[in-house]
Amino acid sequence: MDNRDHLIEKLVMQNNQKILLLVMDGIGDIPHKDFGKKTPLEYAITPNLDKLAKESVMGRLIPVLPGVTPGSGPGHLGLFGYDPLQYQMGRGILEAAGLNMNIKDGDIAVRCNFASADENGVITDRRAGRISTEKCEELCCLISDNIKEIDGVQLIVRASMQHRFVVVFRGQNLCDRLTDSDPLAEGKQPVEIKALDDKAAFTAQVVNKFYQEVRKVIQNLKPANSLLMRGFSARPRIPTMMDRFKLNSVCLASYPMYKGLSKLVGMTVIDEAGKNIEELFQKYCELHNKYDFFFIHVKYTDSNGEDGNFVQKSKIIEEVDKALPILLEKKPNVMCITGDHSTPAAMKAHSWHHVPVMINSSYCGADGAMRFTENECNNGGLGTLESKYMMNYLLANAMKLNKYGA
Amino acid sequence: MDNRDHLIEKLVMQNNQKILLLVMDGIGDIPHKDFGKKTPLEYAITPNLDKLAKESVMGRLIPVLPGVTPGSGPGHLGLFGYDPLQYQMGRGILEAAGLNMNIKDGDIAVRCNFASADENGVITDRRAGRISTEKCEELCCLISDNIKEIDGVQLIVRASMQHRFVVVFRGQNLCDRLTDSDPLAEGKQPVEIKALDDKAAFTAQVVNKFYQEVRKVIQNLKPANSLLMRGFSARPRIPTMMDRFKLNSVCLASYPMYKGLSKLVGMTVIDEAGKNIEELFQKYCELHNKYDFFFIHVKYTDSNGEDGNFVQKSKIIEEVDKALPILLEKKPNVMCITGDHSTPAAMKAHSWHHVPVMINSSYCGADGAMRFTENECNNGGLGTLESKYMMNYLLANAMKLNKYGA
Repeated sequence: MDNRDHLIEKLVMQNNQKILLLVMDGIGDIPHKDFGKKTPLEYAITPNLDKLAKESVMGRLIPVLPGVTPGSGPGHLGLFGYDPLQYQMGRGILEAAGLNMNIKDGDIAVRCNFASADENGVITDRRAGRISTEKCEELCCLISDNIKEIDGVQLIVRASMQHRFVVVFRGQNLCDRLTDSDPLAEGKQPVEIKALDDKAAFTAQVVNKFYQEVRKVIQNLKPANSLLMRGFSARPRIPTMMDRFKLNSVCLASYPMYKGLSKLVGMTVIDEAGKNIEELFQKYCELHNKYDFFFIHVKYTDSNGEDGNFVQKSKIIEEVDKALPILLEKKPNVMCITGDHSTPAAMKAHSWHHVPVMINSSYCGADGAMRFTENECNNGGLGTLESKYMMNYLLANAMKLNKYGA
Repeated sequence: MDNRDHLIEKLVMQNNQKILLLVMDGIGDIPHKDFGKKTPLEYAITPNLDKLAKESVMGRLIPVLPGVTPGSGPGHLGLFGYDPLQYQMGRGILEAAGLNMNIKDGDIAVRCNFASADENGVITDRRAGRISTEKCEELCCLISDNIKEIDGVQLIVRASMQHRFVVVFRGQNLCDRLTDSDPLAEGKQPVEIKALDDKAAFTAQVVNKFYQEVRKVIQNLKPANSLLMRGFSARPRIPTMMDRFKLNSVCLASYPMYKGLSKLVGMTVIDEAGKNIEELFQKYCELHNKYDFFFIHVKYTDSNGEDGNFVQKSKIIEEVDKALPILLEKKPNVMCITGDHSTPAAMKAHSWHHVPVMINSSYCGADGAMRFTENECNNGGLGTLESKYMMNYLLANAMKLNKYGA
């Protein structure tokens, strides 16, 4: 972290103002030829967002660097005011934190899939037919009961959703500089895990033994008789939102990964935040007085973008629009609506395209925008900025930043 | 180069997509009071560029830093994805490379003019009446024949265009930290060349002796009886476009300096790329299958800007527009049109003004621009960015960048 980040930490002060950050995952998009060259934000009917846009300041966010397509981790870290180039979080640690596992310094976490393999160990289904979460829990118990430790390293096995689970390795001298075992394609055997660093040689030995031991336990079961491991990662050393911004923050999200990320930056994570957008927003109302900073995560704009479902992505935006009065009724002092990255429906994938952002507060200013759309945001008063600086504006609008210099 | 630049190198991968970078030198401009307060891009009639603009993403480039007017070297380095503050290339080395001279590590190159001097050595014409290239070649041979080496330092003398020539000094312990001898005005004697660094003392002695020796050879000739030296420079240590971006790149340009710059970043340089815009564009079609990255340089937008010839600058833009279908017919996957800097006709010089840029690809997005003009670019989806980041977008649009982070 350079001087530019440290300055904010020096200027920040606490007050009672409430900041609400509503992230519509993957919201940014590009004009779609099949839908009148509109983006989902342009296509959706959004009277409440339109009204808010007229009283807000707009801009475009660069999640990491110009042209760089981010994963969800770096995308969100930027929105939380962290430089995603400085803090890199592996999938293992994010998933573990999201499952509310208590990760200690020195632990190594890894994201695993149950998979199906033939008699030679060749993977025939990387997701074991997407077994149920209940089945996954059963298998994790079986593994836990049979394998307690390997070479003095303790194992903690925890089921996530469907075929996904997490293993935490706890012991001395562990290191996360390891390759993955996932061959990323069917018809291949799991790849032997290799140390990328001398320090990781012992860990490599442990995790490869773990694979063999698990196989012994489950190899005669169906359909989940193998496993794939990805994203070995240690707990990152990252200062909390309280440390950096004096914010008492809370996460309202459904998916483990976003909860995990929030936990790692010191947010309180609400376990059952809501099953749909309306419930998430109502949870905010309940908690309004308890925190300074609310992160609300809406997942399905991204999922529908990844599925190439333009219409459904627009519909999720309309759902958010419809539920927006729930949030506005509580009058958060600062309200920001944006995304962690773009997921254009035409591309069916995350992309590098700048993300629309709008900030509303008593003194946000306004820039003549009539709607919250990509092109209106191009002309916005915030200009185009890296996501990591957006938090500065949220703090500023919440009157939480002291003046710099005399 | 910091983390931010290295990230791209880590994310980049090769594929078959073709990137075409069309540089209209000095294209950026400001409204001209004698031409309806239009810029040359606004004044020109450009149906093909207009059509492309409607399907492209636009922006403004800052060549080096806000407010900084760049030379052509830094202007182009930025466009090629290099930080022009990190890599500085002297005029000598650029010209030498452009003349296809084989420059080795340790060599020092300098750009020279033949000049006219009176009996006291006072310069009466800094360009010796712009003698012909043939005359220049004749004089260079004369010098080569008469002066082989000075204090053990070998000399290589090569004619460029008109009165311009290059000298390469080859030997041990040479250093380019030297002042110029060009007084930059007539009525003065050439300035004695001074070492800016102790390490350059020997080189200063050699180059001053060289001046004296050349004078002995040519002082009784007319009109070219003296010489001026500018831009002493060693070969820079610069990674190639292949090293950094895995791009097999080619330069289509007419002027030695642009060829030289391209060669220094590892591009293949086509010797006779074309005598006019149409020929340059046709050469691209011929080579389309052979390279991944095509740099096409159009010089006369800049020359006319420097001459203050607004109408002629507009006409060059119209020529580019007319020839544009030649490029488009080959359907490059990514096409970028921009400039290395602005050269406002009203200023008759390079300037600091942001440079319009537009990028077209299958997934570029579009921002409602109707034409490729400075003001339309102000509202573009790329925002305003440093030129060195533009390459990121070209790579992204060509699907040559992996995702960053989980």
